[in-house]
Amino acid sequence: MSIANSTSPTIGVFDSGFGGLTVLRALIQRLPRAQFAFLGDTARLPYGSKSRRTIARYAAQSAQFLVREQGAQFLVIACNTASALALDAIQNAVPVPVLGVIEPGASAARQASRTGDVLVIATGATVESHAYAAACRAVGLRALEKACPLLVPLVEEGWTIAAGAGPVASAAQAASAQPQVAATQQVAVTAEVIRIYLAELNAEAAAQGFNPDTLVLGCTHYPLLRPLLDRAVPAGMKIIDSAEATAEAAVRLFGWQGSEKASPSAQDQIRCFATDSVEKFERLGSRFLGRPTGKVELVDLGG
Amino acid sequence: MSIANSTSPTIGVFDSGFGGLTVLRALIQRLPRAQFAFLGDTARLPYGSKSRRTIARYAAQSAQFLVREQGAQFLVIACNTASALALDAIQNAVPVPVLGVIEPGASAARQASRTGDVLVIATGATVESHAYAAACRAVGLRALEKACPLLVPLVEEGWTIAAGAGPVASAAQAASAQPQVAATQQVAVTAEVIRIYLAELNAEAAAQGFNPDTLVLGCTHYPLLRPLLDRAVPAGMKIIDSAEATAEAAVRLFGWQGSEKASPSAQDQIRCFATDSVEKFERLGSRFLGRPTGKVELVDLGG
Repeated sequence: MSIANSTSPTIGVFDSGFGGLTVLRALIQRLPRAQFAFLGDTARLPYGSKSRRTIARYAAQSAQFLVREQGAQFLVIACNTASALALDAIQNAVPVPVLGVIEPGASAARQASRTGDVLVIATGATVESHAYAAACRAVGLRALEKACPLLVPLVEEGWTIAAGAGPVASAAQAASAQPQVAATQQVAVTAEVIRIYLAELNAEAAAQGFNPDTLVLGCTHYPLLRPLLDRAVPAGMKIIDSAEATAEAAVRLFGWQGSEKASPSAQDQIRCFATDSVEKFERLGSRFLGRPTGKVELVDLGG
Repeated sequence: MSIANSTSPTIGVFDSGFGGLTVLRALIQRLPRAQFAFLGDTARLPYGSKSRRTIARYAAQSAQFLVREQGAQFLVIACNTASALALDAIQNAVPVPVLGVIEPGASAARQASRTGDVLVIATGATVESHAYAAACRAVGLRALEKACPLLVPLVEEGWTIAAGAGPVASAAQAASAQPQVAATQQVAVTAEVIRIYLAELNAEAAAQGFNPDTLVLGCTHYPLLRPLLDRAVPAGMKIIDSAEATAEAAVRLFGWQGSEKASPSAQDQIRCFATDSVEKFERLGSRFLGRPTGKVELVDLGG
């Protein structure tokens, strides 16, 4: 479907937490004239340990908030668990187009892969849903999925390299006598964790007769690990970032290339909402978004 | 209070997850003739990100299940968050003695410390509550607390050394070509994470003029890191395991030293209940308990 020539549309972006801000970041880059409302249902995370029925109810409430209260004309579900388990429920709950992160990731992998074999790294909940394997199968790919539960906490600790910069400084490092040395050691830990996970995944791929040439990042936190992942994969292996793939799919799906209206100011372009943990959202969210989130508004969705 | 000479009492043990099984393990060692009912409120974890009021409601429901449905005559709250935020609410909700993990940890630190300065490592939620700092202050200690968010996921990944044994083998390692090598590399990551956290904590202690001689493990997952922590602390620093301290306090508080009745069989001695994620509980719980959990029963507490 294509909704061309709308002026200044509002795109609603939903996640159970704030990892989906990496998707919002990719959307802003491609749709600089759109306005965005982002909701993190932080009071009820993690969705991954909850039943499909509960996730569907929470996600539908969140989607309705973005459409009814914030006037969103399109929704991007920037949450792998909700995309895997509740996309239908969300589509039934709101009268606007809805895009998840999993199918765009699988489609981009289909474009990238020559061997037809791809690797997927994600959280435990996403891997257990086998949503990427199913989406890859639907486009003719074989996928081997691996849960990497340490990567989200490593990103949230800030033990990463900011793109084009040195290691991210955390509050703890500011108190440290040798912050830069400490940060280098922290990044080395993350690099080693990535190396171990990828070695395990490649060993399993070899054991199963896979010949993978593409790695799909199936978690919205993982784009913050991109510099380390680029170094860790074998030469020639392509990396598919679901956040980027979803933003590209959004541009195609919504068909909206920006109006003649002036771009909104950075301050006006995004409004962020959270159901809890506003402080953590504001503190960590800017790393995911690549710029300050601004004031995050607390909302109560009940339930 | 002392309830001596009871025969075969049932002790209820409660946690938001299954980390509290380390407390149950310590209790079983000291009270081999007691029977135990353990409840992990896994459907509603993590408690750490929820409000005090919500935590109090969840914890009170859990306590009532153990007392009313399982006949527990004493309760041990093997959960730092619930001990910090809901001990009063639990005591008001049930007519039996209730013991948390924080005061026993602080009391044991008081016994151990000569300098009066102690360090506490815990999850983010426990540190934010400053419950250990308050409990330490109440017994005349100064405490410096540090959140170590990577340690719980590292324990749950099994990147640890089993006490008196080599590294724990995970399912992923079983699939690996060189499982023992991989496990050694994983344990090295955990050792490095511990080294970084303790270096940051010691730097902050020095900056604040602390002279610590005792480290309190303020999380029920951390006893599984004990061999690595023993190697990481400076010579002469004592480590207080809240699980051990709580079990000792339980023996003193409940005054029950076992009846003449024969010990229950291992199979009959414990019953484990969870509100969700029974599979994960059974799979990981045995590492915390030091023996199989047996069949974990699913219960619905509503809400």
